[in-house]
Amino acid sequence: MDVAIIGGTGYGAVELLRFLQQHPYANVKKIISHSNSGTDFSDVYQHTVEVVELQMEEIDIDQLAQEVELVFFATPSNVSKHTIPALIDKGIKCIDLSGDFRLQSPEVYQQYYGEEIAPQPYIEKAVYGLCETYRENIQQADLLANPGCYPTATTLGILPVLERDLIDPQTILIDAKTGVSGAGRGLSLNVHFSEMNENFKAYKIGQHKHIPEIEQTLSSVANETIQVTFTPHIVPMTRGIMSTIYVDLKEHQSTEAFIDLYERFYQQDPFVRVRKNGVIPSTKEVWGSNYCDIGLYADERTGKLIIVSVIDNLVKGASGQAIQNMNIMQGWEETAGLHTLPIYP
Amino acid sequence: MDVAIIGGTGYGAVELLRFLQQHPYANVKKIISHSNSGTDFSDVYQHTVEVVELQMEEIDIDQLAQEVELVFFATPSNVSKHTIPALIDKGIKCIDLSGDFRLQSPEVYQQYYGEEIAPQPYIEKAVYGLCETYRENIQQADLLANPGCYPTATTLGILPVLERDLIDPQTILIDAKTGVSGAGRGLSLNVHFSEMNENFKAYKIGQHKHIPEIEQTLSSVANETIQVTFTPHIVPMTRGIMSTIYVDLKEHQSTEAFIDLYERFYQQDPFVRVRKNGVIPSTKEVWGSNYCDIGLYADERTGKLIIVSVIDNLVKGASGQAIQNMNIMQGWEETAGLHTLPIYP
Amino acid sequence: MDVAIIGGTGYGAVELLRFLQQHPYANVKKIISHSNSGTDFSDVYQHTVEVVELQMEEIDIDQLAQEVELVFFATPSNVSKHTIPALIDKGIKCIDLSGDFRLQSPEVYQQYYGEEIAPQPYIEKAVYGLCETYRENIQQADLLANPGCYPTATTLGILPVLERDLIDPQTILIDAKTGVSGAGRGLSLNVHFSEMNENFKAYKIGQHKHIPEIEQTLSSVANETIQVTFTPHIVPMTRGIMSTIYVDLKEHQSTEAFIDLYERFYQQDPFVRVRKNGVIPSTKEVWGSNYCDIGLYADERTGKLIIVSVIDNLVKGASGQAIQNMNIMQGWEETAGLHTLPIYP
Amino acid sequence: MDVAIIGGTGYGAVELLRFLQQHPYANVKKIISHSNSGTDFSDVYQHTVEVVELQMEEIDIDQLAQEVELVFFATPSNVSKHTIPALIDKGIKCIDLSGDFRLQSPEVYQQYYGEEIAPQPYIEKAVYGLCETYRENIQQADLLANPGCYPTATTLGILPVLERDLIDPQTILIDAKTGVSGAGRGLSLNVHFSEMNENFKAYKIGQHKHIPEIEQTLSSVANETIQVTFTPHIVPMTRGIMSTIYVDLKEHQSTEAFIDLYERFYQQDPFVRVRKNGVIPSTKEVWGSNYCDIGLYADERTGKLIIVSVIDNLVKGASGQAIQNMNIMQGWEETAGLHTLPIYP
Repeated sequence: MDVAIIGGTGYGAVELLRFLQQHPYANVKKIISHSNSGTDFSDVYQHTVEVVELQMEEIDIDQLAQEVELVFFATPSNVSKHTIPALIDKGIKCIDLSGDFRLQSPEVYQQYYGEEIAPQPYIEKAVYGLCETYRENIQQADLLANPGCYPTATTLGILPVLERDLIDPQTILIDAKTGVSGAGRGLSLNVHFSEMNENFKAYKIGQHKHIPEIEQTLSSVANETIQVTFTPHIVPMTRGIMSTIYVDLKEHQSTEAFIDLYERFYQQDPFVRVRKNGVIPSTKEVWGSNYCDIGLYADERTGKLIIVSVIDNLVKGASGQAIQNMNIMQGWEETAGLHTLPIYP
Repeated sequence: MDVAIIGGTGYGAVELLRFLQQHPYANVKKIISHSNSGTDFSDVYQHTVEVVELQMEEIDIDQLAQEVELVFFATPSNVSKHTIPALIDKGIKCIDLSGDFRLQSPEVYQQYYGEEIAPQPYIEKAVYGLCETYRENIQQADLLANPGCYPTATTLGILPVLERDLIDPQTILIDAKTGVSGAGRGLSLNVHFSEMNENFKAYKIGQHKHIPEIEQTLSSVANETIQVTFTPHIVPMTRGIMSTIYVDLKEHQSTEAFIDLYERFYQQDPFVRVRKNGVIPSTKEVWGSNYCDIGLYADERTGKLIIVSVIDNLVKGASGQAIQNMNIMQGWEETAGLHTLPIYP
Repeated sequence: MDVAIIGGTGYGAVELLRFLQQHPYANVKKIISHSNSGTDFSDVYQHTVEVVELQMEEIDIDQLAQEVELVFFATPSNVSKHTIPALIDKGIKCIDLSGDFRLQSPEVYQQYYGEEIAPQPYIEKAVYGLCETYRENIQQADLLANPGCYPTATTLGILPVLERDLIDPQTILIDAKTGVSGAGRGLSLNVHFSEMNENFKAYKIGQHKHIPEIEQTLSSVANETIQVTFTPHIVPMTRGIMSTIYVDLKEHQSTEAFIDLYERFYQQDPFVRVRKNGVIPSTKEVWGSNYCDIGLYADERTGKLIIVSVIDNLVKGASGQAIQNMNIMQGWEETAGLHTLPIYP
Repeated sequence: MDVAIIGGTGYGAVELLRFLQQHPYANVKKIISHSNSGTDFSDVYQHTVEVVELQMEEIDIDQLAQEVELVFFATPSNVSKHTIPALIDKGIKCIDLSGDFRLQSPEVYQQYYGEEIAPQPYIEKAVYGLCETYRENIQQADLLANPGCYPTATTLGILPVLERDLIDPQTILIDAKTGVSGAGRGLSLNVHFSEMNENFKAYKIGQHKHIPEIEQTLSSVANETIQVTFTPHIVPMTRGIMSTIYVDLKEHQSTEAFIDLYERFYQQDPFVRVRKNGVIPSTKEVWGSNYCDIGLYADERTGKLIIVSVIDNLVKGASGQAIQNMNIMQGWEETAGLHTLPIYP
């Protein structure tokens, strides 16, 4: 199947290419980039020399519709909403790595994204692609909203105890940490090497646009309106997210009991791994791979369950999950193109 | 005044030397190291060549008592408790950077430090050296227990709202992050460069020995038994601690109001700086200095106050605070030897 | 084909597993580790949980000879020489990632490795596995000495101009830089995070054991005894080698002319990429992959050619090249299991 | 003495402030920044909050001349040459951290800096401020050209053997490595954290503007025209320069003999430290300090002397040396404000 990537110069695009280059059924036919059209992709990303031989192009929707069956959008916020409707109307499947089609509420979208939401019929069409939870909907999807990086790590960490009604859903607190690549390739003093190296920062406290995305999924699962406390931080490393999640248990159980629950909950899911008692995963243990690894600690002293969930923000938190979603949409085996081990050290 | 440093090969010692070398009133006369006695200090730490010209020695308590007036212990846990009593008995002041004299309860000490506590009369003599809170006691102290790194950042962050009774003291949750130097100079796979670089880890969840230290101080200030949730993490950088602290407010007030409160609370304290509204300090902004910088965010949505407190773990979290304590004990100006700017970038 | 890995707890082993797990023809049947026999591999390397399900074992040569056809040695120096002869005698192919069978001269081996060389008949049997240069010999090899990391980057950088007799072979100067993983998993203060982070070091000047290995290959190609100046340095990053090589040209030519020469020289070699004029590769552009990328600059002012050659020390400098060698030995396509893009960023 | 700093938002300025804040005789009265005039300095550099209380201003030469006696220029290339002449004419001393007044030759300046050189009378007035070599001229200077970072580390490494005529001056080869802060605070993809982290790069091979500066000093000392090979690289760390220097010896002598020579050569120089036999300094051993540390290895095999010279690029390579120059110009003790130990780890 021929596919296209829109947003060719970002880190999302380059990770899509890394996985698609090994994919047994999908082939990248076009890379679209407005800012770099006419340039060889490998001139922008020298590490792809002699491997990726495409030139970046301007978008042409009619031509795209003729040449490819599926389009990945690895664009900034408020871009894909202008183009996806036309492609969907022409019968092209779209997987959107940006946030444009993730939220249901126009008001909330306006508040966090600063613009009007995409047209309502397309918002209704869009399926939220958290693979492990919405696999059946995804199989039917034409327009897929690929989850954000923080929401992926966070909701996978919380869902088992939330669904089984073991926690007070109004006590969810998430202290999240990301590697710097989550900020993308855009230049900024915040991620200037000399200022970010040997530094650790909190940012956008109480205001990050992944807050409503997390709350929407959790509220829908719990069937009640959930508000979370969510504080993101940035770590002086390139890749990796850790969500450290704190929830009040309705009733204390042993760590072992929760581990059993999580293992059963995710037993059909090839990319979620639950650590054994006494072991907490670190971000490097999923580096470069599509895994989400989870460690648990039930604190008898305070009555809380502490959940540590790690992913590679560019893989399970973006491009890897996008390919996993494509695999589900197409009815292919879910791991196609994705069964690489994490790279360590 | 001549002083000695015991525990000469650790990072605590080398930071003490950096500050004492510029100190107007104190002079390092002896460096004691059992494992390196007979070796030049500058052979172990090449960066001190031609500046520090002392040879490390075995400890000899009688000789120490004759030659110096004050001794810094920069030793691992469960070492100073065997030596400090004899020095105190001879009239030598002691500042202990380890945890041996910080806890009051023999049971808690046994549980977290795995050995018997120091003799009771010396535990009673020991003053806990959180300068900003116990300045008056410190002025009288002969035996000073210098606070741990996490407890320093954490308690300075919480005290203003706890003392003013603005929070529910049973809701304190601390998600803490440290640079790698906190683990000291001892070799371990955990801090082996190739495994720690580009990695972020949680560790000792619910079990860190700084938990009872934090609880003891907070309980004493609040006049009730407080239990906290405390999760430490390790960041791929050498220096810096951030405590992100979450507390339930009794009543919502604006961020601005809390900033005013903190500024007034710390207005006599030369090393605590409160950031203005909208600004959260990062760890690099105190790098190499004795500052504790605090940022605040009152979250109307969730009714929580989020407090971000940063220090350099080896300075305000160890050697810098030890010198600040010496200054207070001696009646010198509190900033003597310590008024260096953070080093940036 | 079933294979075994000896030296199961080092970085060489874990990288072999990463590539072999995706290899179309080879399957890892056994992992041998003396220090960890009886332990699950995934307990030592948590990132392989649920993927690598082997337990490490003690070595048993007879059993090995029955169960596998080829053995990789990812052991420290002076280990494989004691075991390989017995395996070879039983008809098992061996690929040695250590230096035991690389050098021809017993005296030189003794000088640089501090012990006696392996038995002479096996030294004679051993083929030096620099794939691009000795491909035909490798096809016949039973005992393969996989090149060192520095020698791989360095000799691939020099060979084209040396073979074409364009340089004065007595002027070769190599200033080499490696990531920290080159030092392996053994603990040492040199690679303790707090001391290696934000640090850059030279080490073993004039004494590194890769000096005779480089000289042996270059001398054999040039048909004269060549001595090189070689200075290794260590960079605060996990992976990557850069050799910056300086040679006196017999006659000045344009940079463009040398690029043409290198491109023709390596045109059959899938893993050597020559950068175009004005572009010098950085180490990250080969990160995680089996590529060796080369950039060139002919300096008219000084009459020198400056060659920059980069590899991932753990891949083309160790495990990746070992698999490339296995592919050649077995007559498989040379890129089998290895056609992954570098991982960027 | 009141001084001003021009170029207030760069790393040069912030390091000047760090040292001047502790200086016994000099006081920063004004910070000039065109791009940030009207802004508090501590709003741009939060780590200086409550310590630096100046607002940045537009330049006003008449006012400057009335209020300060000396001006530091921490500006980019081709800026100071427009302002310094007017200040000098008004009797204000100037220390220029940029390259505008370092080169004597108008042609060479034009070639490497891309613009016309400063007016000839001021070029003639300018004294090149390599303190250890030109101390006597510096005492008389009104206009001081502070050396570049690479030239400082490199020429201090070479001068002893060049002056004593022990090397072939046409064989000098410098392989240099810098931390990222050398690139300044300007944003660029090259120093974007995600692209620079875990990366090592060569750049501007054969074209760096420090080449003519090094050659000018060496040629003047040797009394013959010297051309050097100079290749700069960038290391994923914030601070530090290492120059690894290779020279052909006229006659082999022991490493010990060269160490003796260097120690005698620099025995009056408080900021140059020569390591003992077998010890090579790493960049972290001078971190944050004004030291230049030198290690030596005489290679009998190849007849070369290998010199390793390390500095902190922002201190001895910029602001620290500028203050050292001010001290010499004013007749103060050379170490005033500068006697801090390197910060380790």
